[in-house]
Amino acid sequence: MSSPVITLLSDFGLQDGYVASMKGVILEICPDAVLVDISHLIAPQNVRSGAFVLYASYEYFPQGTVHLAVVDPGVGTERGTVAIRTEQFFFVGPDNGLFSLVLRKEADREARRLENRQFMRSPLSSTFHGRDLFAPVAAHLARGVPFDTLGPACAPISPRWGEPPIGKGKVAGEVIHIDRFGNAIVNVLSETLERQGPGEKWSITAGKSTINCIRQTYGQAKTGEALALTGSTGFIEIAVNHGNAASELGLEVGTGVVFRLAEF
Amino acid sequence: MSSPVITLLSDFGLQDGYVASMKGVILEICPDAVLVDISHLIAPQNVRSGAFVLYASYEYFPQGTVHLAVVDPGVGTERGTVAIRTEQFFFVGPDNGLFSLVLRKEADREARRLENRQFMRSPLSSTFHGRDLFAPVAAHLARGVPFDTLGPACAPISPRWGEPPIGKGKVAGEVIHIDRFGNAIVNVLSETLERQGPGEKWSITAGKSTINCIRQTYGQAKTGEALALTGSTGFIEIAVNHGNAASELGLEVGTGVVFRLAEF
Amino acid sequence: MSSPVITLLSDFGLQDGYVASMKGVILEICPDAVLVDISHLIAPQNVRSGAFVLYASYEYFPQGTVHLAVVDPGVGTERGTVAIRTEQFFFVGPDNGLFSLVLRKEADREARRLENRQFMRSPLSSTFHGRDLFAPVAAHLARGVPFDTLGPACAPISPRWGEPPIGKGKVAGEVIHIDRFGNAIVNVLSETLERQGPGEKWSITAGKSTINCIRQTYGQAKTGEALALTGSTGFIEIAVNHGNAASELGLEVGTGVVFRLAEF
Repeated sequence: MSSPVITLLSDFGLQDGYVASMKGVILEICPDAVLVDISHLIAPQNVRSGAFVLYASYEYFPQGTVHLAVVDPGVGTERGTVAIRTEQFFFVGPDNGLFSLVLRKEADREARRLENRQFMRSPLSSTFHGRDLFAPVAAHLARGVPFDTLGPACAPISPRWGEPPIGKGKVAGEVIHIDRFGNAIVNVLSETLERQGPGEKWSITAGKSTINCIRQTYGQAKTGEALALTGSTGFIEIAVNHGNAASELGLEVGTGVVFRLAEF
Repeated sequence: MSSPVITLLSDFGLQDGYVASMKGVILEICPDAVLVDISHLIAPQNVRSGAFVLYASYEYFPQGTVHLAVVDPGVGTERGTVAIRTEQFFFVGPDNGLFSLVLRKEADREARRLENRQFMRSPLSSTFHGRDLFAPVAAHLARGVPFDTLGPACAPISPRWGEPPIGKGKVAGEVIHIDRFGNAIVNVLSETLERQGPGEKWSITAGKSTINCIRQTYGQAKTGEALALTGSTGFIEIAVNHGNAASELGLEVGTGVVFRLAEF
Repeated sequence: MSSPVITLLSDFGLQDGYVASMKGVILEICPDAVLVDISHLIAPQNVRSGAFVLYASYEYFPQGTVHLAVVDPGVGTERGTVAIRTEQFFFVGPDNGLFSLVLRKEADREARRLENRQFMRSPLSSTFHGRDLFAPVAAHLARGVPFDTLGPACAPISPRWGEPPIGKGKVAGEVIHIDRFGNAIVNVLSETLERQGPGEKWSITAGKSTINCIRQTYGQAKTGEALALTGSTGFIEIAVNHGNAASELGLEVGTGVVFRLAEF
């Protein structure tokens, strides 16, 4: 049998050793785990960006992979915690919407609130649940503890940005991630738009800019021109050809992006 | 038997491939080593910061882990080298104080000067002991070579900042690390202060600022207020609630931080 | 038998999860692969820098290591792809010169164009060959598929900067990498110069600065003085003692660096 894979995603950064503490805890519990970093440079406390980066990578991992994700502005408060089992994967982290994009794709799942102290470090700090709670639970899952011993069944929360409201000829989304190149990813799948009308019939308002249609490739825009296109994840991206959309159009995570169909 | 774990900490950065060269050397000697990065973004040549980041993470790793740490401003000079064995761990690196915080906690230990050429690469460069000396020694330790074959017994140096002078009602510490959020970690354990008097009786001078007591949580200060509190590692931290203490109070590694007890 | 090692080098950065997607794909195909990052912070689309960082690290890895490198400004165009087998290693990536420095050292090799669809993901995206083409090929090689099943034999391209023109008493090189400390690495091996004359007889023009000889160590220059010396890789480096050569001398990747021998 091959070694279990555990991925890690957080906003802990790479300079301080927080990620290493989680890995040490995991290896203590599950010595043969294969650890893969997804990203630890999620903008601090930015749950939307964390949700997107996880969404963009999770499905390329082998069957049985445990995805441990900690972007957790509510740590120390009464926010919930969750483990989710889908057909192929496990997900462990705070119950704050971090898994909401993944769950748009993973229909078949069940979820548990993390309440079984047996799978946590003791004493449990109030500030570092990544190390004391989520990492050990992920390691125990990788080792094969029965999913339903983690705690009671629950339903993960689904924030508004995880499921943007879709009207007739109008979809009101928002920016959920800015990538390394300044492209702004919007929480709207291109297939959602296509169901109502073709790309060239949509106009898009992103911040103060208006873009006239959805294109297929960067090359269809002039240098310096703003465009909307379907990204490799299926979500709409706002880009500037050979430029930086975020800084040039004033976009950031949370900026509203409204799609309108021509005939409405 | 499970695979040996080797952690790596350095100030080599992540862009140039220096860390990869060390890992290649390790895997050549000890192919089943599990390699975990603690941090490679220690501020260049900042031994104090390296010592702190190692201290904050090392004990979460499994029994037998080899901690390889290279922040080595003296490379190429006559500075010493060292391997240390404690009850649970090995430490390998330059003998410049990098392990001094760890050794405040790890009472039971022995140390060896690294002189056995058999465990080094040949030729030995004068500029990259991380790759040519420390990495191979760490890999050989992980493979199980007898500790006392590394070289003669020695006593690791203990710099002043590793053990701040403690007077009656006065402790003169200094900043040893600035974390990702601008919090300044001071080389004074809160238990050292508590032995003399409770947190609310201490006043703290950090750079040009004075702070009036040691608190339990961030929430006990107003937004924008400077505070001192016990960090998750046991060391005192200077923070600004919802702010950046380092930039707002002008703190950097080496800044003096003096603690005075009210009745003195 | 020990686990196969696969190294990864790219310009994908560490924030977005692109590297993780490649690793997931690899682990799906070759679950016991040991994955080591060389660097993912190569300056975007900078093939020269990628070539240098790979060159500086690759030979420290165990026999049989697969080096996967993706700095690929031509992705989506008709640029070629390549796998190379040398006496000790495999290399997989775009055929754009990324392996040209390595190939100056690795005389004995054969190369294949990557055309066998059986070793690629399907569908093959036009924008992310790192994940869909190079990662799976590297994983299959690590698993042991016969090298000659990858595609037809080919000759990797050799760009001008990979093999600078050498005249009598004059070598016209260029900067191929700026390291973390601002040192500029030049695509000229010091042995190339030594064959014509000793270090003290060469003068070097780097951008607008002239340097009068090639030295052995940093210490031979005054603080703030520019110098040329032989780096740990054998390539000439332009440095400023206790300074940042790139910013102080206005050097960047591609800047011409001309070496002239005194008697000519």
